[in-house]
Amino acid sequence: MPPVAARSTTTSAPTSKGASTRDMLLARACEMAAKVGLEGLTIGELASNAGMSKSGVFAHFGSREDLVRQALDWFANDFTEQVMVPAMARPRGMPRLQAIVDNWVRWIDGHRDGCVFLGATVEYDGRPGPMRDHVSALMQRWQQALVRAVALAVETGDLRADTDPELLAFELQSLMLGLHHGRMNQPREAMDLVRRAADRLLARHAATGAIPANA
Amino acid sequence: MPPVAARSTTTSAPTSKGASTRDMLLARACEMAAKVGLEGLTIGELASNAGMSKSGVFAHFGSREDLVRQALDWFANDFTEQVMVPAMARPRGMPRLQAIVDNWVRWIDGHRDGCVFLGATVEYDGRPGPMRDHVSALMQRWQQALVRAVALAVETGDLRADTDPELLAFELQSLMLGLHHGRMNQPREAMDLVRRAADRLLARHAATGAIPANA
Repeated sequence: MPPVAARSTTTSAPTSKGASTRDMLLARACEMAAKVGLEGLTIGELASNAGMSKSGVFAHFGSREDLVRQALDWFANDFTEQVMVPAMARPRGMPRLQAIVDNWVRWIDGHRDGCVFLGATVEYDGRPGPMRDHVSALMQRWQQALVRAVALAVETGDLRADTDPELLAFELQSLMLGLHHGRMNQPREAMDLVRRAADRLLARHAATGAIPANA
Repeated sequence: MPPVAARSTTTSAPTSKGASTRDMLLARACEMAAKVGLEGLTIGELASNAGMSKSGVFAHFGSREDLVRQALDWFANDFTEQVMVPAMARPRGMPRLQAIVDNWVRWIDGHRDGCVFLGATVEYDGRPGPMRDHVSALMQRWQQALVRAVALAVETGDLRADTDPELLAFELQSLMLGLHHGRMNQPREAMDLVRRAADRLLARHAATGAIPANA
């Protein structure tokens, strides 16, 4: 359930070496957070995982909270680049919506240790504060992007005019959560179920004459 | 996404005082776990939350792992009693399936701090071991119960004969995850969306002439 985010600015000096070390650290931080949660992330463990000194990591992230926030943004940006950006290259309407769904399923399949963002929504749901607000804002941005993609497919005439973009976006998002959840027990079955469910959901809303990309 | 579980046996002496203290401790443990996760649960903090000594809590749970496992079972049992048991009193077929959906939505709405079981699947997904196996077994039991309820509704003729119980159960489960997730940002909208989505999902599979309980 990762969000669409602008690439966040680095707190370290914007040299290319600084940027690539920061990128490496954030990628590691996300790998670790997928297993232990963002709240389980510490600067000390990240440093030892990356073979750096704690002060070396502190040069990039001023505090644990700063690290967590930037890791979330990094993860959100990675999702955008792998799911949304390639879909935007497809014609708007059903081809783009179908590409979002396909890329999304592939992305979840590629993150078998868990999803940092899904973990974050569970971790921060019951904990009001700036981090919950940040997670919530990233999530809302992604939901809006998805609703927009559905609405565009209604505008192009690929989806029926009586399609409710909010509802269809909610249903698609729910299926992806079902995949995340279901693959704990039955990874292959869950992949098969989510593809069939998404295909029939889109087919059901397809305007007469419009053919879903996967049909 | 809580599972169907048999009430687990207590490790303390089976006196009624012991049982009710244990029940109280497990209810508190679940409240705490909804906020900090099961891995964040400690015997010390549970003792101080319940106004008991650590050794008093240890009399009920031999270890932190034992506490976590029993809290999961307690939560699963609570779900069963509030969602499944009242639904079993309804005639099998669509009335029972509709009751499961309605009770489930109400149950999620009543657990606004988060779901211990959903948290557990996120926490343990990437961590192989006995706790992950336990979570996975509870989850599978619930999924099977749901598939069975759908299959019964096909047998009674309330749902169309070409309904795939695995797929429809996956879609229903996904919608509940969508509610869990969506209410972080928009609690009212998420409740409305999940009800509409579940109603139209069941209506779409209803056999001609059969009328969903909510229609």
